This record gives sequence, C-alpha cells and structure tokens, in this order.
Amino acid sequence: MNSNTFGTAFCLTTFGESHGPAIGGVIDGCPAGILLDKSLIENELSRRKPGQNAAMSARKEPDEVEFLSGLFEDKTTGAPIAFIIRNKDAKTSDYENLKDVFRPSHADFTYQEKYSIRDYAGGGRGSARTLLPCVVAGAVAKQILASQGIEVLSDVVQIGEESSESFTNDEIERILSRFREEKDTVGCTIQGIIKNAPVGLGEPAFMKFNAVLAHAMMTINAAKGFEIGEGLHAARMRGSDCNDAFINDGGKIRTLTNHSGGVQGGITNGEDIVFRVAFKPIPSLMQSQQTVDIQGNTTTLEIQGRHDVCAVPRVVPIVEAMAAMVTLDFILLKKCNKI
Amino acid sequence: MNSNTFGTAFCLTTFGESHGPAIGGVIDGCPAGILLDKSLIENELSRRKPGQNAAMSARKEPDEVEFLSGLFEDKTTGAPIAFIIRNKDAKTSDYENLKDVFRPSHADFTYQEKYSIRDYAGGGRGSARTLLPCVVAGAVAKQILASQGIEVLSDVVQIGEESSESFTNDEIERILSRFREEKDTVGCTIQGIIKNAPVGLGEPAFMKFNAVLAHAMMTINAAKGFEIGEGLHAARMRGSDCNDAFINDGGKIRTLTNHSGGVQGGITNGEDIVFRVAFKPIPSLMQSQQTVDIQGNTTTLEIQGRHDVCAVPRVVPIVEAMAAMVTLDFILLKKCNKI
Amino acid sequence: MNSNTFGTAFCLTTFGESHGPAIGGVIDGCPAGILLDKSLIENELSRRKPGQNAAMSARKEPDEVEFLSGLFEDKTTGAPIAFIIRNKDAKTSDYENLKDVFRPSHADFTYQEKYSIRDYAGGGRGSARTLLPCVVAGAVAKQILASQGIEVLSDVVQIGEESSESFTNDEIERILSRFREEKDTVGCTIQGIIKNAPVGLGEPAFMKFNAVLAHAMMTINAAKGFEIGEGLHAARMRGSDCNDAFINDGGKIRTLTNHSGGVQGGITNGEDIVFRVAFKPIPSLMQSQQTVDIQGNTTTLEIQGRHDVCAVPRVVPIVEAMAAMVTLDFILLKKCNKI
Amino acid sequence: MNSNTFGTAFCLTTFGESHGPAIGGVIDGCPAGILLDKSLIENELSRRKPGQNAAMSARKEPDEVEFLSGLFEDKTTGAPIAFIIRNKDAKTSDYENLKDVFRPSHADFTYQEKYSIRDYAGGGRGSARTLLPCVVAGAVAKQILASQGIEVLSDVVQIGEESSESFTNDEIERILSRFREEKDTVGCTIQGIIKNAPVGLGEPAFMKFNAVLAHAMMTINAAKGFEIGEGLHAARMRGSDCNDAFINDGGKIRTLTNHSGGVQGGITNGEDIVFRVAFKPIPSLMQSQQTVDIQGNTTTLEIQGRHDVCAVPRVVPIVEAMAAMVTLDFILLKKCNKI
Repeated sequence: MNSNTFGTAFCLTTFGESHGPAIGGVIDGCPAGILLDKSLIENELSRRKPGQNAAMSARKEPDEVEFLSGLFEDKTTGAPIAFIIRNKDAKTSDYENLKDVFRPSHADFTYQEKYSIRDYAGGGRGSARTLLPCVVAGAVAKQILASQGIEVLSDVVQIGEESSESFTNDEIERILSRFREEKDTVGCTIQGIIKNAPVGLGEPAFMKFNAVLAHAMMTINAAKGFEIGEGLHAARMRGSDCNDAFINDGGKIRTLTNHSGGVQGGITNGEDIVFRVAFKPIPSLMQSQQTVDIQGNTTTLEIQGRHDVCAVPRVVPIVEAMAAMVTLDFILLKKCNKI
Repeated sequence: MNSNTFGTAFCLTTFGESHGPAIGGVIDGCPAGILLDKSLIENELSRRKPGQNAAMSARKEPDEVEFLSGLFEDKTTGAPIAFIIRNKDAKTSDYENLKDVFRPSHADFTYQEKYSIRDYAGGGRGSARTLLPCVVAGAVAKQILASQGIEVLSDVVQIGEESSESFTNDEIERILSRFREEKDTVGCTIQGIIKNAPVGLGEPAFMKFNAVLAHAMMTINAAKGFEIGEGLHAARMRGSDCNDAFINDGGKIRTLTNHSGGVQGGITNGEDIVFRVAFKPIPSLMQSQQTVDIQGNTTTLEIQGRHDVCAVPRVVPIVEAMAAMVTLDFILLKKCNKI
Repeated sequence: MNSNTFGTAFCLTTFGESHGPAIGGVIDGCPAGILLDKSLIENELSRRKPGQNAAMSARKEPDEVEFLSGLFEDKTTGAPIAFIIRNKDAKTSDYENLKDVFRPSHADFTYQEKYSIRDYAGGGRGSARTLLPCVVAGAVAKQILASQGIEVLSDVVQIGEESSESFTNDEIERILSRFREEKDTVGCTIQGIIKNAPVGLGEPAFMKFNAVLAHAMMTINAAKGFEIGEGLHAARMRGSDCNDAFINDGGKIRTLTNHSGGVQGGITNGEDIVFRVAFKPIPSLMQSQQTVDIQGNTTTLEIQGRHDVCAVPRVVPIVEAMAAMVTLDFILLKKCNKI
Repeated sequence: MNSNTFGTAFCLTTFGESHGPAIGGVIDGCPAGILLDKSLIENELSRRKPGQNAAMSARKEPDEVEFLSGLFEDKTTGAPIAFIIRNKDAKTSDYENLKDVFRPSHADFTYQEKYSIRDYAGGGRGSARTLLPCVVAGAVAKQILASQGIEVLSDVVQIGEESSESFTNDEIERILSRFREEKDTVGCTIQGIIKNAPVGLGEPAFMKFNAVLAHAMMTINAAKGFEIGEGLHAARMRGSDCNDAFINDGGKIRTLTNHSGGVQGGITNGEDIVFRVAFKPIPSLMQSQQTVDIQGNTTTLEIQGRHDVCAVPRVVPIVEAMAAMVTLDFILLKKCNKI
C-alpha cells in the first residue's frame, strides 16, 4: 500500500535491508532542471559514516551512492531519480544466533508476528541503516531549498541526563564513551530549525505542517517524542505567556516571540520552525538480557559485535533530511493554492 | 490535494467552517454490514457539548448529526457515509471586528497570507468546531473496534502546572475556573490508551503506527507535542532501564515492562498503546493584546464573547476519536499483509 | 480506501444513493479566490433535468444544489467545498419488488455479492443519479478553465446504428422515441473535445493525460469503451498515415494533423484533445427478462416505471464534467514540475 | 507526486530511461510469504527479448533482473521488493542527431516543453523499454494469482487491416515483415482475458474495475483505445441484445452471455474479464519525415538504426502484466470490504 513512500509532491520511496544486496530509493516529483551537486550528497552521507568516533559501531561501509535514473548531465529531468547504495560488508551468517530469538525493544518480534517471516540479518528492514536513502533524498531537497534561501539546521540538545543548547562533537564523544564503558546505551534529543521558510506552508485540515513534520520524525527508528515550539511545555503555560504578539517589523508582519515554533493553525508564519525529537536508547546492549525465542521459550541474549551506544550522532542528518523533504514538499504543494 | 482527508483504508474527509451553513464529513472505506448505534455517536458528541461546565464557552449548539448516505436500515453498506451538522447559532456579523485584525497565535494571519482570502467568522476553517466530524467518524470506528474487543480510553494528566494520573471532572472545573477568573487560559496534556489492539498494526517504513498516530494527534488544533511510551523521557534513560524484556506469559509472548508504549519498530506488540498529546493554552484571551491589522498597522485587540479557557475538556473525545480511526485503519490494512 | 475520491490536486469525493436523503460531494484542492457563478452550475445540472425530452424518465427532481462550505461571499477560500442535492422524490417502497431479484446487467448482483448488503432502491449507490455531484464539480472546474481560455465541448456521434458528426437534440429525440416505442433501449457514443489546453499536461509514467482521462470516463455508469485521437482505428493504420508531422505555425510548434488527439507520450501537445466514450444500452428494459433472485431461483423480471432509453442525453454533461476536472487537475499538477 | 507509482494495495514504482545506467522498479505491498519462482519472471521478460523475430529491433539486451530487497531465501517478506535491469547496450552518442529535433508522434516535443530538459537518448523516459519493470512486477502478480487459480491470457486480434480471433506467431511475423519491407509500421489490437477472477473485485465509485483497468492499459506507450466486453460495439446495440441474463448454473449464479465482459457496475461478476487495447503504429519510421527542430526550424528527419514495426509482439506481456497487477490489487483491497 505504498507505505514505503513518503511525501505528496516530492516523494521518496525507500527499499532495502541491512544485509541484502543494496538499499536505495526513488525520488518522484523532484522539480526538473536542478543541477545536483553530488559532493553535497556525499557530505551528508559522510556525517553518518561509521567509525567517525569512538561511540559508533565499527562496520566499514563506504556508502557510495550510484544514481540510476532521472538525471541528464547531472540535471534533474522530472523523471524519477533512483539510487542505490550497495551493502558491501554484509554477512548474514554473522546473525545465525539471532534467527530464532527476539532482541528486546527491537522490531524482531513484531515483524515476525506481522509477516510470519523475517530477514533477521542485522535487523533486516528494521535496521537504522535503511534510513540512509532518506539522507540522500534529503540532500537533494536541501540543495533545492538552499536555492530558495532556506536552511535546515540541527543541534544535539540532550543526551541522557545531560542537556545543552548545542553539544559539541567532543562533548558528545565524552558522554557516549562513558556509556560504552558501562556496556550500556543512552537516549538523546535533537532540535531542528528550519530557517527562512516562507509563510503559507502546510495544508489544513490533515496535512498541517506540524502534523506532517511529526509524522516524518516519528518514522525515524527509536523516535519516541516530537515537539514544536514550546512543545510539551506549552501544557504548563498560560495563554498570556504563550501567545505570540504580532508586530510590524519594518513593513513585514512578524511575531514578537516564537512560542508557536513557526507554525500557527498548521501553516508556517515565516518565523523559524523549531522542533525537537526524542530518541530512546539504542536497544542493542552489550549486556546479558532476558528474552524469549520464537517458540516462546525463555532465554538469555548476549548481543555480539560492536553497536552504537546512542542515536546521536548518526541520526542527526536523518532529522535534517526528513525536515528538508517536508519543507520542499509543502513549497511545491503551495503552488496549487491559487490558479 | 485531498488534504482534508485522513486515513488509508478507513478514510475521513471533513469540511465546514465554524459559521458556515454546516460542518460534516464523509467516511470512505467503512466495512460493510456494521449496525451503527447512533446513540453512541450522540454520546461522543455530547462530551463536547458547550455549557457542560463553567469553563466552556456558551455557544448553544445542539450538534445534531444527520446521516445522508452509506446506511441502509442503519447498517453500513460499503458506500461512503456522509453526515452533516448544521451550524444553527452562526452570526457572521458578530465577527466584523475581526475582519481586518489578526488574533495572536490563531490561524488568521497564516490563512490570510496563504489564500489571500479568509472566512473570519469564528475562526472559519481554523475553528476547533471543525473537529466535530472527527468525533462522529471516531465514534463509528470505536463501535467497530469494540466488536473486536478493542477500547480507546483517555485521561487528562496535566493542566498548567498541575499534574495527575487522571484528573476528575470536578478537579478540572476547579482549576479552569481559576484561570477564567484571571481572564487567562491554560495548556493541558491528554494521555490516551488503546487497549487490546492486536500485534502487527503499523506499516513500515513510513506508516509506522506511532508515526501515523503522531500525525493524527498533531492535526488537532493547538497540539504542540506528542509522546509514545516513555516519550521525551526516553532521551534521559539508559538502555538497560528502557528495554522491555520479553517474557512468556502463560503461552503468550509479552513484555515485562512497557517503556515502548505498545509499539516496537513501528508495529504494535500487543501491549497497551500509551501516548500523550500536549496542547497549548487557548489563544483567545479576555485580555487586551498587542497585534497588527491586515495592513500591518499596530493595534490592540479585545476579544469579545465567552471562550473556552483550556482545550480540556472538549479536546478529549477528539483525541480518542483520532486514535480509534488510526487503529481501525491499521486493522484493515493488516488484512493485506498476506494473501 | 478513498475509492469515492477522484483527482490528485483538484479532488472530488462523492457520496449518496439514488433514494437516500441526499447525494453530494466535497471538492478538495480548489484554488482559492475564485468567484463562483452558481447560475453556471445550475445550467449544467439542468442539462440533466428529467422530463426534458420524451426519451427521459419522468422522475421530477428539481436538483437544487446547496453549498455547505468552502465559499466566503461566493468566493472559494481554499477550504473544501461541500455541497448536497436532496433526493426529494424518493420512495424506497416503490422498489420492494427489486429487493430480492437481480436486474440483468445492473449492479445488483455484484454489489450484493461484494458487500452482502445492498440499498436496492433505485439502484442505490449504483444509480446514474450518483453522478450528479460530478456535474457540480465539473461546472466549478469549467469556470476555472474558462478563465484560462480552455473549453470543454462534446457531441453525440453515435446512437445505435446511426452515426453523425454531431446529432442535434431533435434528431436524438426522434431516434430515442423509436426505441422507447419498441420498449427497448440503445447504446451511444459521445465525443469530447478539450480546446486550448496548454502543452505539458499529464504526468508520466502512470498519470499520463490519456490514462487518467480514460480512467475518468470509464467510471461513468455504462461506459464500455474509450478512445483518444484515432482510437481503435489506429490499430488499422500504418505509421506513415498516423504520424503527426510537426510544423512551425507562425512561430508556434504545432502538428499538421491530429491523429494523436492532442496527447503524445501521455502529455498534451497543445492541439485539441479529442476523445470518445461508448456507452452500452440502458439495462432497464420495459420488457420481460429472465433472471434469478437472491436465492438463485430462476424468475422473470418486469421492470416498472419509466426509465431512460439511452445514456444520451443525460450522460453528456457528465462526460464534459469529468474531462474538465481532469484538465484542471493536470494544470495544477504542472505547477510542481519546476521550482 | 508519485506519478511513477501504480496501484493501491499492490503498488509498483518504476524508474529509468532507455539509455541510463539501469531501469527498475519497487513493488510495495506484495503479500509476505510468497516463494517467488524467478524462472517465471525470466520467462515473461524473454517474451519481450529483442531479435526474437525479424520484426523486432536488433538491440541486444540480456535484460537480467537483479533483485535488491524484499526477499529472504527467495520468499517475499512484506518489505518493498526492488529490482533493476542494467542497460548494457546504451550509447547516448548514437542519438546526438536527435538532440535538437522532435520525432513526429514521439514524446520528444511534449517532454521538452513540459520540463525544459530532456534525455533524448533512445527516447529517454518515454521509451517503451521503461515498461520492462511492469513485466517483472506483473510476473510476480501472476504467480500470486496462479496460487488463487486465476489466469491472465492474451491474444493478438488485429494488425493493421488484418484481424483474427488469435494470430499465431508465424502469422504475425509474416504480416510485420511486409511492413518492414515497405519501411513502414503498423498498429495492432491485443485482447486480454482474466479467467477465474472472483466476484466482487472493483471499488466504486471511482475505482471501478474497468476504470482502473482502462487506466492501466492506457499508460502503455502507444495505446489509443480501450474496450471491455462489447466495448465500442455496445454503442450500436439495443438493450434486449446487450443485457446478460442471470441463470442458475448448478447452484452458482452466472450470466447466460458475457456482453458485459465480466464487470457490472464496476465490479467483477465472476465471468471472464474480456478487454481489448488498441495501439497506434510505431512512430519511428525508416522513411524521411517532415518535422521541426528545437528552435522551430522546419527540417527533415531520417531515423537511423533498426526499430520495431509494431507494438506486437513486445507489448503482449505488458498488457498481461498490467492486467495481473490490477487484478491482484483488487483482490487485496476486497479484504477490507468487511471487518
């Protein structure tokens, strides 16, 4: 039912499992005539590269993107843009021990129950690696947004009990190393900011900007919460503190504050779009865990190999990519609001 | 672009403005042969009835639903079910003073900018009244879910700085009265629980149960945050505390804890689906506010009439309705997972 | 699954049965700021009015449209436009005799088998009356197209064995009267022409203009065939006769001939879009027919009342309406081809 | 806008140009647990292999399918099934002469005007080669249908002025050779038959079986007409000849005749689904043709290389593939008609 497609005008269909021949995507609805800078796409992918710091798992994947269609002399033609990334470091045999056992808080059990079959190698379709095609499509969207002066940024603002307005890489590495030493993992929160988005993005009643953005973010593996503007804190506020007064800022209507996070009535108001996504700790622990096997027998699981200890830093470019796709999609849809 | 339709197999299209002739909806994809108990639909609507308590605005709308199609001798036929609710208490002239002014943190400015035209009476299409058709469709979904043993419940868990596991109506009234006296409004959080949902609901990668549920909730007016399971708190946790160990519970595979909130890998695991939605304070204040008019002139706004001081209690049946629709939709979609 | 919605950017959802309380529709995605001339909508509906000529059935329905939403001071606002037409002349009891019997070549049997329930009165959801909302939405689309200089026209070109380039009303009446006297019915073909459509409408690979137009036409009750340009005759032609040579017509690239019917590679080329739709004879005969009842018992059916003898003339405005909606939809979609 | 995706429950997204790196597709919504016989897929592809007979163009493509995802030990897992076919025989330089000229009745002009850029090599995205992924997905659908006892067959029934109930390969070759000698091309008609489809496929009002089938067929390159049952001929018939009387055939309700072509009211009735698709002559002529270049200058075109002279025989497996996909899609959708 096309559940592997995201977007309305700018659409991404993804495919692939962690240890299958390749993962990839098809971008449908990309505007024609855009000169794609592939180095910018590689840059985004390299932000996810394994082995970047001590806290990431050690799988060595060059993650080279091969574009198969939709480009002519590096320009988009309006035809669907397909691309693949080969899984070069894929040995299904490494995962034989997980064939019949359900890793706690992973998707093993639910996939098995839903489909009565499951590609157990490396998490299969449920692996975070399957988000890579989103980074590629997001990098395409970012280039088009940049041509309109729109920028998508992000910050790591929380890791476990530690919070910051924007952690540096060194700080992140320091915190994560501690959890790795303790053979544990930890959750985190990313804050995203979309700057210079025009007024008028979002399509009520059910494609409000914030609703589609929430949808996009909650499709990311391990996401457990989404906030825009004041977010959960808004529930604790009174109206006189939370309302954003309108002002005339040199001829432009703006708001004095931005408690709304750039969206009012589901439509962007021209202010920064500010949102946060919370991720649970990586469920692959280097500790012994209680679980059951496929027959329901109680057993103990010792996950082998090296695994990330936190969604950060790898999830950061994914958050930006999804935000970029949502923003570009609404820019295209807005063209249909008037004849 | 069909942005007023929600759902994939069980679809609701809504229409109507606060002060137009009628609001209503069309349910497409409702399974055939269901005997609808209209009194249960009226019950759900009555939970939103104005004048129920002191904290709600005084508009007197009987909110009678007229079904126009899709039923034969009160049974669903598989044809689309259309229904309307007349707006009997609608005087556009009451809103002449809002014609040219933008109410802070309402949708006035964004609608005007997006469409260059706006039905300013009572908030027009942006009014919370336009959510009523969701309650009707949700009540239909609830009946079908009930026949499968599935229940959707909710609790008010936060109002301003006060929190509870489940506020009673009397407590809610007491808190809201205080804000009304202070001519202010206040935010709130609703917790929803879906009980007895089967394992296997949700369609990765982009129609994960939690993602579509977040989308549904964030379409509700004033929603600013969504959480599932541990939610935002998961970012503060370590894996060894957050993982849900699998157990064999009398032959059934279950989890010992439910930090996941009933969804793993985007698919329900058979545990209670637990989520929370945070709403900002109602932006219609009984106080003087700074704003601008349609020409950008700075002005002061005094909103007239009586308005709700909090999304609670009216939003409660909406939260349940959206959750019921999402759950039923995925139950239907799951039928296509196997031949 | 939203099967009662047609269109991508300009979407119509229809509802209603022949003898239920009302039929109607919701237009979603109509551009904002269009001043609707309701008399033009009434004009289109009156082309379908019963009792217009001797060949039409005698049901007296004024078919008044009531708009419920999406308009403000008669202008479209960008919100969904809902409208209903009450079924004033509806007596379910007239159809008691059809409750348990399947009319040959009607939808009685297939609806009953599919849904295990059926609104048998007047054909229920399968009645041609349910196409009326298409006429309303088509009339809206026509007004917007007219503002762009685009016109949708049609001709009756075949009735039974008689063919013409364009039958007049008098000729149609004469032919149909003959079949009515013989207590029989007859098929027909309508030719549609869309004039002045811009180059570039249609979205390959699967939303080619001709494919979506065929889809639209084949949803009309009793449609059995669709052709564009040379249509079926193209199968008999050789390339040297069928190709359309390009010429420079005063600075504009055009084709010397129009065997293609205005569409090449699924995209309009600026020439007239010429298509034909063939309709089978009305299956309600004034003769005795062999059939079975719901238990499978062989029986003889005598259909009572007065019925149309031919899809013409009532289907003519439907063909135009569907063509107008398709054209407008693609005009909106084309806006997304470039940034 | 996802215009390169076809289907609702069983969805195919295609990508690729004639002379790009690869063409391919993504099947989303394929039921899980199906053991795919890849040799059957290769069989279907080989029916399109070039050089099979004298009438086909000489491009030597092995057309090997590589599956990239969605299979585990050759069984479908419910995850999207991606596959690619490399374009090994692709030299863009061969087409330099077509860079600035519009081939008559091809998609060159319309693509150029729509997107302002065009992959001119071998017809780019407009090439019939881009239909190959449909054959792959259709072969998957056929296997699933076969497991339900459903078969999709086809016959060539018309080539130019010659018609037959079912041409043999030898007869086809004889006719096509004649046109090739004359350096001309010719149109054709394919008849498809879907056998043993269950009653109840098709979703009114706008996803009627015949309407979606027409849509599917008209997306095939060069299709100009579609008929179901009596098709265009129905326009010439009278009701007493065209109606299909119901009979009780050994306890099963059937029709005595099948003028309807297996579909009544947009829903299958259990009889053979019989349809025809007419294709125009291949527009690539070995003759000199009048045309214009991209600047609008009149010029003469001599198409080089060898080209097919008729859509037959290559289009035959495409027609079957699209029919198979439509049928399977509706089988899945029907599961949602009841709870």
